[in-house]
Amino acid sequence: MNVGDVRIGGGGPVVVQSMTTTSTADVEATSNEIARLVDAGCEIVRVAVPDREAAAALPELLRRPAVPLIADIHFDHRLALTAVEAGIHCLRINPGNIGDRDRVRQVVQACKERGVPIRIGVNAGSIPEASGPDGRPKTGAALADAMVAHAMEHVRILEEEDFEAIKISLKAFEIDPTVRAYRKIADMVPYPLHLGITESGTVRTGSIRSAIGLGILLYEGIGDTIRVSLTADPVEEVFVAFEILKSLDIRRKGSVLVSCPSCGRCEIDLFPLVGKVEEVLAGIEEPLKVAVMGCVVNGPGEARDADIGLAGGKGRGVIFADGKILETLNEDEFLPRLTAGIERVAADHRAAAAEKDAPVP
Amino acid sequence: MNVGDVRIGGGGPVVVQSMTTTSTADVEATSNEIARLVDAGCEIVRVAVPDREAAAALPELLRRPAVPLIADIHFDHRLALTAVEAGIHCLRINPGNIGDRDRVRQVVQACKERGVPIRIGVNAGSIPEASGPDGRPKTGAALADAMVAHAMEHVRILEEEDFEAIKISLKAFEIDPTVRAYRKIADMVPYPLHLGITESGTVRTGSIRSAIGLGILLYEGIGDTIRVSLTADPVEEVFVAFEILKSLDIRRKGSVLVSCPSCGRCEIDLFPLVGKVEEVLAGIEEPLKVAVMGCVVNGPGEARDADIGLAGGKGRGVIFADGKILETLNEDEFLPRLTAGIERVAADHRAAAAEKDAPVP
Repeated sequence: MNVGDVRIGGGGPVVVQSMTTTSTADVEATSNEIARLVDAGCEIVRVAVPDREAAAALPELLRRPAVPLIADIHFDHRLALTAVEAGIHCLRINPGNIGDRDRVRQVVQACKERGVPIRIGVNAGSIPEASGPDGRPKTGAALADAMVAHAMEHVRILEEEDFEAIKISLKAFEIDPTVRAYRKIADMVPYPLHLGITESGTVRTGSIRSAIGLGILLYEGIGDTIRVSLTADPVEEVFVAFEILKSLDIRRKGSVLVSCPSCGRCEIDLFPLVGKVEEVLAGIEEPLKVAVMGCVVNGPGEARDADIGLAGGKGRGVIFADGKILETLNEDEFLPRLTAGIERVAADHRAAAAEKDAPVP
Repeated sequence: MNVGDVRIGGGGPVVVQSMTTTSTADVEATSNEIARLVDAGCEIVRVAVPDREAAAALPELLRRPAVPLIADIHFDHRLALTAVEAGIHCLRINPGNIGDRDRVRQVVQACKERGVPIRIGVNAGSIPEASGPDGRPKTGAALADAMVAHAMEHVRILEEEDFEAIKISLKAFEIDPTVRAYRKIADMVPYPLHLGITESGTVRTGSIRSAIGLGILLYEGIGDTIRVSLTADPVEEVFVAFEILKSLDIRRKGSVLVSCPSCGRCEIDLFPLVGKVEEVLAGIEEPLKVAVMGCVVNGPGEARDADIGLAGGKGRGVIFADGKILETLNEDEFLPRLTAGIERVAADHRAAAAEKDAPVP
């Protein structure tokens, strides 16, 4: 499946998406947020389209070609038709919620003509089946089953209309029902899955909850695109999403920093050094592995495994590059020499990549 | 197994531990850091004992009874004997690294007499088997197998000395070999497992990497105690550890905050409100679930499921308590009324707990 020019599923990379927080009708604010998301590496952006004012902004937003856009629409098939006509790259709409079959057909027909996929998005917080007959909220497998059953009703409506450009999400705040639901539906349908833990909270807590939930599924090979939901600037969502994918070696984007927590054995001033190295690495786009280690117990091993690494000792330290000792330094030389080494290794990466891309003579 | 008065494994709760970053020989600094860790909820604290000065500080550190202490010792069996004599609650030492069998016997004998368990700690960065015959670092299953084999050599030494108060850790920076190693050893031995992702980096990236690695294992029921390794104040490690356990419903400690990322549908000023609610919740010890939601799509569902929740609308919002609508408010009343509600629900929890604990008349 393609959303604009971005492939979802089919063995392609797991795609990172986010959603704007601005009023979609405010074209300037929304465009600016989209641009910031794209700068951060976001590959697909979703915008809420709750009303005609928002829908009316889509042509202008789509005229600024930066990234494929998804329109998030609830209940109103006319907004969906307007969005497709404007050239939206994907709809998030649940066909069972937009009224009779004639309305579904209109939307499906428009999507077919334009090659626009539909994401069916089920959130535990918004389906009546999430509560049992006693009115109490379901949990665990019972909630997962309810979410899957609800999603499958929407899937069947689209399949009956011979529409198969379907993506599915099944989000809950709790990790267990989310994992169970995705595992179950992954066995039932061939469609790409959009992963998320819904309303997961602030950066401080939500990134941990999202990392666990998405991490469990991605490690099992489930999930084609992810969105981390945080109560924060959505640029943070993109950062966390890529850190999840990098931690699992699923995507590479910029550096990975190995650094130790330090302990009573550490005889260098580690925390400020690591903070400064992290700043240096923020400007490096190549996929380097850098290690900054406080002592000789695990330091040399980790430093040797990295593209470039430092193992500290008593006020002195050793820099390793590519598995070999490069130099032994005093503590005041750590940051400048590490920085120089990082820039050199990054330049080597760029040169190797350029050579690979060069036309064969 | 008990570490001091803290039970590890055997169906008990997953225990949170951390490690001091101070020089252990500096009793005042180390005591202060231990006290801050205990305040944050840390249940066991490890201190590095790299030399005799550090070992000499143990009697004084152990005289201030706050939390069980583990001495982290490498290579030197005399430091281990000194630590046990001082009354340490657990050793982290690898018996294969301390010399001949006579030295092992001395340590084991001392531990048996005092009821002191031993953690065998294998870090991928510090074992020779982590590299293949070609000198290249192993990854994935090959690295996991090497870590498990290395750990089992230490385990056999202790078992041959008829010592079974063993804990094991198998840490790597990469998630995949760590997960494979713990899964494998969990099937091989009956001993409690200490989980960690080693040298996982800063708060920003390391908490994500640790959450995924530990989360995958904990969700499978593997792991009896955890330590999150971050290049940061160790109080952060305790916070992240509990967030991981809370996210998986394994432990309860303070509140869980459900909050949405907001989007173009949100018509209240959500981010500052959520920030302030997070501050209010930092002072609440009861295990509340609080929801702060921006709109009517998922808001009412999530708010209804929480102990107390707000679902925003156009400049107004509804507070739910215990699944029922409590009141409808203007935006300027959100924070004071939510705060009042949170404090009331927390007081109800305390009263219920006190009633449960009261002696039967």
